[in-house]
Amino acid sequence: MRILAFGDSFVLGAGDPDHLGWIGRALAGRREVTLYNLGVRRETSADIAGRWPAEAQPRLVDHEPMRLVFSFGCNDCNLEGGAVRVPAAKSLLNARAMLTEGARLCPVLMVGPPPAAEADVAIRAEALNEHLKVLCARLQVPFIDVFRPLAADGLWTREAAEWDGAHPGAAGYQRMADLVAAHPAWRAFTAPS
Amino acid sequence: MRILAFGDSFVLGAGDPDHLGWIGRALAGRREVTLYNLGVRRETSADIAGRWPAEAQPRLVDHEPMRLVFSFGCNDCNLEGGAVRVPAAKSLLNARAMLTEGARLCPVLMVGPPPAAEADVAIRAEALNEHLKVLCARLQVPFIDVFRPLAADGLWTREAAEWDGAHPGAAGYQRMADLVAAHPAWRAFTAPS
Repeated sequence: MRILAFGDSFVLGAGDPDHLGWIGRALAGRREVTLYNLGVRRETSADIAGRWPAEAQPRLVDHEPMRLVFSFGCNDCNLEGGAVRVPAAKSLLNARAMLTEGARLCPVLMVGPPPAAEADVAIRAEALNEHLKVLCARLQVPFIDVFRPLAADGLWTREAAEWDGAHPGAAGYQRMADLVAAHPAWRAFTAPS
Repeated sequence: MRILAFGDSFVLGAGDPDHLGWIGRALAGRREVTLYNLGVRRETSADIAGRWPAEAQPRLVDHEPMRLVFSFGCNDCNLEGGAVRVPAAKSLLNARAMLTEGARLCPVLMVGPPPAAEADVAIRAEALNEHLKVLCARLQVPFIDVFRPLAADGLWTREAAEWDGAHPGAAGYQRMADLVAAHPAWRAFTAPS
């Protein structure tokens, strides 16, 4: 199986001293899974929507099961020049386009955004997380919600505050990986076919 | 610092149960380093030459030191329909183009190919490794030779033979990572500026 993961710095695992991120950690021990980590720092849903088809193309093959993971949202909710980088309605349009086009190629799964450290960003990200969940239900794309468990737990945001304000360390990424790996949707999505 | 690593399945770390590959392992503990692993399975120097500028573009930033790593060669030496996939002369032209264009953007380093399991591929890969070393010396690009140490050691090829014939496991990738991480060229290349 080959998994292509498109998203932002959280997918990439920025700040993880082990260079794994939550997705590398969620796939620990699965050596038969080829992971293409295509997270890019600072990218919004618009950036990812513009980039993913070209980067998927050389990585897709016919002779092995393929999977597409999308995870984004926090950067959409950040401010730039006083305005939200991507308004929620546009984030949802971008998500719908990616999930719909992705599902034509292979099974698709979405992981919602983790909590942000700044209060105003966190409020917008939490709302976007809920909207993305509803969108995914409508599109019949499995959605894994990590926002509330990570926010309630506090480890993620505490590690982020101690580092660069946004990215946790090994323990925070592991906590998110554990949430994802234990989710029935992830287990079905990554089950050997 | 941000490191963009372009190459093949060995850069990607295919078969590594920890999803790190040699480059993730060589950067263990360096959480201030953002690693973009842009290895793609089965790709030759021609494939990478065609893809790397577009994939580098969204990952390059001005506000942090950038580094480019290239590592390829084994797939060039494989046979396809009775012919070598990329003849050595063409491999060297591709390498020269990538290293020259890359060096215009930021410091560049090349890591030579690891040993191949099949005898005829290994002979061609060893010759290509030598040619790439000479090219890099001419271009004043640091080159790290892992071919002979990994071949002499035997762990890499033994693990590969036990798995899919090409890719080692955790120990083989760690051995290559140790060779790279201990090399003065790597230490200078990844030193905090």
